[in-house]
Amino acid sequence: MKKMSSAPTMKDVAREAGVALGTVSKVVNGLPVGENYRIRVEAAIEKLDYQVNSYAQGLKSNRTYSIAVLLPNTFNPFFADLAYQLNLALQRRGYKMLLCCTGYNPTEEQEYINMVRQNKVDGIIGLTYNPNLVVEPDTPYVTIDRYMGPGIPCVASDNYAGGQMAAEKLADLGCRKVAFLRIGSSLTNEPNKRRSGFENGCLARQLNYEMKILDDGDPFDGFIDFLKEHFHNRKLDFDGLFCVTDNLAFQIMKVLESMGLKVPEDVQIIGFDGARMFGDGRYVCSTIVQPTDAIAEMCVELVLMDNAALRPPLVCLPVSYAYGGTTSETAQELQDADGGIF
Amino acid sequence: MKKMSSAPTMKDVAREAGVALGTVSKVVNGLPVGENYRIRVEAAIEKLDYQVNSYAQGLKSNRTYSIAVLLPNTFNPFFADLAYQLNLALQRRGYKMLLCCTGYNPTEEQEYINMVRQNKVDGIIGLTYNPNLVVEPDTPYVTIDRYMGPGIPCVASDNYAGGQMAAEKLADLGCRKVAFLRIGSSLTNEPNKRRSGFENGCLARQLNYEMKILDDGDPFDGFIDFLKEHFHNRKLDFDGLFCVTDNLAFQIMKVLESMGLKVPEDVQIIGFDGARMFGDGRYVCSTIVQPTDAIAEMCVELVLMDNAALRPPLVCLPVSYAYGGTTSETAQELQDADGGIF
Repeated sequence: MKKMSSAPTMKDVAREAGVALGTVSKVVNGLPVGENYRIRVEAAIEKLDYQVNSYAQGLKSNRTYSIAVLLPNTFNPFFADLAYQLNLALQRRGYKMLLCCTGYNPTEEQEYINMVRQNKVDGIIGLTYNPNLVVEPDTPYVTIDRYMGPGIPCVASDNYAGGQMAAEKLADLGCRKVAFLRIGSSLTNEPNKRRSGFENGCLARQLNYEMKILDDGDPFDGFIDFLKEHFHNRKLDFDGLFCVTDNLAFQIMKVLESMGLKVPEDVQIIGFDGARMFGDGRYVCSTIVQPTDAIAEMCVELVLMDNAALRPPLVCLPVSYAYGGTTSETAQELQDADGGIF
Repeated sequence: MKKMSSAPTMKDVAREAGVALGTVSKVVNGLPVGENYRIRVEAAIEKLDYQVNSYAQGLKSNRTYSIAVLLPNTFNPFFADLAYQLNLALQRRGYKMLLCCTGYNPTEEQEYINMVRQNKVDGIIGLTYNPNLVVEPDTPYVTIDRYMGPGIPCVASDNYAGGQMAAEKLADLGCRKVAFLRIGSSLTNEPNKRRSGFENGCLARQLNYEMKILDDGDPFDGFIDFLKEHFHNRKLDFDGLFCVTDNLAFQIMKVLESMGLKVPEDVQIIGFDGARMFGDGRYVCSTIVQPTDAIAEMCVELVLMDNAALRPPLVCLPVSYAYGGTTSETAQELQDADGGIF
């Protein structure tokens, strides 16, 4: 669709205000100019309803005041919340968000990285699955969950602490034998640390544990077989499970249900992410909550930071535990805990 | 962050290819040029790794190949799915999506509308709550769910048919007295038609019905009081409920549970939207599914349509029913239905 070219130009503003074109340019670009001139130019801008042409402005300042955000999708609640929080953090700083749902597609991911070199965005915040992304050394680029090298800051939850927290919580809640269930990318990434943290927590509390680790491509039946192998006389060998995501926790609950087991009476479950019903309702399960608001703030701070040398390579932000109905807290414990309880 | 200015220019490409600057410009802008010249320019572009400057391109073509999408947030599953589908539909056409979470804030909504006049985006697709939005007649603008006037196309689900479908489905499932529960904006909008469709469906099937309508600001307790007024001898006067959203259906289920009522044995419930667990899992409840993919496709088609005069004022797209565990279909009915059943 073509736009009308009848819009007033900077020249029209200069004529209306009775000042030089350069003076209008200074006011528009926020440069110092005599107060008297500034008032006259602003009055002319308002009278003519002059709109700054952002192409021309971009050519001049080499900034677009927009940041590209790469996420696999926005229907997953964790990604949906990240998109929302990143949008807020950018808006607070006068930046716009160009969102790209990459669908885990390495080609799409690379295309967006290239956009920066075409001056289409000022920087990139990306949660990507392409280990071979080609990123220019001078590209403002911040990753979420993927550590890609010392020049590229990575922001993540403290996944190790989260795993440890889950193990210790299950111990506190009286579990005697627990299991860790994980399905996900085999790429080196921060969420993989949930496993080591969990192991460490179990060792610290002398809690017996087993682990079942599946890769993204593996069939879900691997978990069903694992649970059945540990099912004797209508009892599961485990009284506590830590699932690597809330989504997996939800699926495992349905499996346990079909085996005639009750959650949390027979088996307590803790997930990871902090997914809520309809985005802001009750937690889907008891969970280690990722601080999406703090992750978003940190990503935006880092991508806009002028001095690249000051940017830290890895930032891990604190997680928290929230009750969501799949663990056996006492009424007193629930009352003592603040927030996160519906 | 400043970018290096050492990047090759169009002049460098012309020099490398041994052609005139105008020839490079033609190739870059896809205009016809001798095959021999095109090959030389493309080789030079590849050798120098020349990247088109999109500001300069934008100044020339007056296009940014980006569309602003205004949504209240992305954590609500319906909005999250819309954002995802709009992103896909735009990407298929080589367009980028500038996402703005407006938080139901009229000022933010108006600011994005103004962006179009600053040439920052080529058009706007908006699900907004500002009845007083100032939109220029020549602004490519498509709304979702809000009919704003004959010049602005509105794309929505067929909400009337959805309401009627819910009533007829409850009748088919053996309900004898039903109720419609609605909470939402009192603004004139397409979703309000769910009510009229429901009434029409009840009348057509001679199904007794009542309605409880709350405004956005009203306390949720209004529904609890309504249900308690219709609760006698541990039985609810209604054996079927149609809730205006899946979110409301989910909340009402918890209320019924606390009253000792079983869903679907005592009361069948149908929601609206088609929300799924974790975005792509099982349906949260039996529901009238909004066709977010078709809505997104239509919005993008209309916002990019060259001839504004051809754009229809209102497009209503077909909804469908999906079983989600809160209705009493027989095993045979579930087997006959295709899709949407976990």
